[in-house]
Amino acid sequence: MSDPAAVEDRPGAAAGGAGTDGAAPWWQRPDLRHVGGRLHLGSCDLDAAAERLGTPAYVLRAPRVAAKLEALHDALDGAGLAHRVFYAIKANRSPKLLTWLAARGRCGADVCSPEELLLAYSCGFPEEAISFTGTSLSATDIEILARFPGVRVNLDSLSALKRLGAACPGRRIGLRINPDAGIGYGGNDMLQYSGAAATKFGIYLDRLPEAIAIADAHGLVIERIHFHAGCGYLDRELGQLERVLRAAEAFMAQLPDLAQVNIGGGLGVPHRPGDAPLDLGRWAAAVAQVLGLHSVEMAVEPGDFLVKDAGVLLAGVTYAERRKDVDFLGLDAGFNLAMEPAFYDLPCAPVPAVPRDAPETRYTVVGNVNEALDKWAEDHPLPAPEEGDTMVLINAGGYAASMRSDHCLRGDVRELILLE
Amino acid sequence: MSDPAAVEDRPGAAAGGAGTDGAAPWWQRPDLRHVGGRLHLGSCDLDAAAERLGTPAYVLRAPRVAAKLEALHDALDGAGLAHRVFYAIKANRSPKLLTWLAARGRCGADVCSPEELLLAYSCGFPEEAISFTGTSLSATDIEILARFPGVRVNLDSLSALKRLGAACPGRRIGLRINPDAGIGYGGNDMLQYSGAAATKFGIYLDRLPEAIAIADAHGLVIERIHFHAGCGYLDRELGQLERVLRAAEAFMAQLPDLAQVNIGGGLGVPHRPGDAPLDLGRWAAAVAQVLGLHSVEMAVEPGDFLVKDAGVLLAGVTYAERRKDVDFLGLDAGFNLAMEPAFYDLPCAPVPAVPRDAPETRYTVVGNVNEALDKWAEDHPLPAPEEGDTMVLINAGGYAASMRSDHCLRGDVRELILLE
Repeated sequence: MSDPAAVEDRPGAAAGGAGTDGAAPWWQRPDLRHVGGRLHLGSCDLDAAAERLGTPAYVLRAPRVAAKLEALHDALDGAGLAHRVFYAIKANRSPKLLTWLAARGRCGADVCSPEELLLAYSCGFPEEAISFTGTSLSATDIEILARFPGVRVNLDSLSALKRLGAACPGRRIGLRINPDAGIGYGGNDMLQYSGAAATKFGIYLDRLPEAIAIADAHGLVIERIHFHAGCGYLDRELGQLERVLRAAEAFMAQLPDLAQVNIGGGLGVPHRPGDAPLDLGRWAAAVAQVLGLHSVEMAVEPGDFLVKDAGVLLAGVTYAERRKDVDFLGLDAGFNLAMEPAFYDLPCAPVPAVPRDAPETRYTVVGNVNEALDKWAEDHPLPAPEEGDTMVLINAGGYAASMRSDHCLRGDVRELILLE
Repeated sequence: MSDPAAVEDRPGAAAGGAGTDGAAPWWQRPDLRHVGGRLHLGSCDLDAAAERLGTPAYVLRAPRVAAKLEALHDALDGAGLAHRVFYAIKANRSPKLLTWLAARGRCGADVCSPEELLLAYSCGFPEEAISFTGTSLSATDIEILARFPGVRVNLDSLSALKRLGAACPGRRIGLRINPDAGIGYGGNDMLQYSGAAATKFGIYLDRLPEAIAIADAHGLVIERIHFHAGCGYLDRELGQLERVLRAAEAFMAQLPDLAQVNIGGGLGVPHRPGDAPLDLGRWAAAVAQVLGLHSVEMAVEPGDFLVKDAGVLLAGVTYAERRKDVDFLGLDAGFNLAMEPAFYDLPCAPVPAVPRDAPETRYTVVGNVNEALDKWAEDHPLPAPEEGDTMVLINAGGYAASMRSDHCLRGDVRELILLE
């Protein structure tokens, strides 16, 4: 059912080529490439899809998600780790994708709010396949969790522990801990879940005895710990993974009923020339080096890793025009449809669906929202496109549709799922 | 119909008091203050509103919007400027507010996308009262504009000029120009619409002759220029306003049919202790100093200025808990409901609806979204609240609901409009 070719190394990654010198572009892979001069995602001609659906439109290729998932299972099997995978639906909660994944049965769903829980459940995930790790839970949130005794709830504060304990005495639960260490893509400060300053996530080691006492008082059994090892990390950040896992061992030592260690998400995908895909074998070996020494099941909650490079955003070119000394290229899609480029400096590189045989120009590529932030790329080389051409913004499968806003009422967009 | 008291100076503004020393808090004003220990917006007891509606909930006081609007008219009348006001609906497009404003007839609507145009029209604004200034217009966008011959369309690129000219020959239009100068709240780089580097907005002076030639070729009459003088500016930035207006004069000199100069929005509101409200008399005098010398009507498009401090976001306290050396206070409202604090560093200060008689603690106030960005305030002094208390996030009337995202499915929120 998987598509191993889809996770092959990208030929241009090592060379850092942008495709301007005849080398393959860094993002190219067997299921995302120009065929006969037309960009295809799987077997879908993206310009033809734009013609049919109109722009802007998201396109997500489900078999790519499945292939990444199988590669993750294979790597963890290879490292001898008993494991579970929960897909972090906050990255892309398209009901089409969720139902497709639930039907395959190769992953559970990681949810971070009661509404996400209800969505995952209503898309077919059985409650036992749902892992809940929310924050700042209200009384209403606790009430919804109480309706689902089979959901694997991880609690991130002493307060939530007390309140769930009162509502559901005797329940088997997890603790979201804060190992006080973390790693982020390229050292991006905005992507830190933990680190030097205290963050809002999880229970620190100094409060663990209190957490255990609260659990005991309500008969709660702490069978899991959960933490986030990082955000968007690739091979270059892997060296730090062991440090995070070692920090978690101090918690594990105090929890006699521990059966599962959930290392959260954070597995990254390439965003720029020179980024190589995460080496899953190396990653799994790093995890096994620590967790393999303990008789626990390991769990992981990939989000972006599964979906980000499986999806693109199709946009139409609205104009090309020089202002002062800058060539602007306008699109009919704004930053509100994929906020990570504007807010986290994680680019969605624009690629022409059908590159013209035209001289290359370096463009500032902008959207149709009246904000200065609304910019897709700067100094970005493209063979000069014309009005109406389709541009494909890559890496728009994760944290794009799910964070979408309707700012300036520029949020109307179609979504296409590709099943092959 | 207006409420002059609502635009009185805030007593704490000059002193910079945060209300911790017995002085009035900086945000306090006659229609936003604690009465009998309970925070009121107008006559609405905000804790009682939270009890009825549940949290999170937006509350917007329409008479405050009207009072700001009247103060703007008064200042412009006082400076002898013939003028029109178009409310920038991108700041808050609540259909309740739009219908209320359309019925009053004291302002038009500034819209920045065809969908906003359709919304303003469907809320009762006649097409002649709608000013359209969009960017990166698609063929579909142009088609919608062509349906509304009475809408005042300002075009921001040569390309759009050509395409509207082809669709609507002979139409009276405006040009969005780029005066290549601008001012932002506190010098915030992220709020720059213009400046040293070329921006995507408007036609620069060097391309004006081409724009005029394109207009002539299609019989378009350029009767307006439009530009943005800045973003969120207050008195301290007013000195720069004249520079922007002077820069616009070079465009005016080349446009014989010019009847209106639209200086866009950008009028700010106080965000922090020490920020004083914009002195409208001084502002109008600065505008009159330049535009008063020309026989043109002046137009202005306030957004935040009218609505931001007329609205609040009600949130419930979910927990208070110490992590490492930081006291965290959790709310049931996340940054996805008001993104400006996280993305632009424009705070929505948390104020207890019913402050407890408790020792003051300095909190990091966080929301219920699983992102490190989801933080309302740091080192923020509050009399220790308890779970279930209502916190009021002020300055949530503008660019909060309208930019809202449903990230993590934490976007479900009620909206209350106060009509008195």
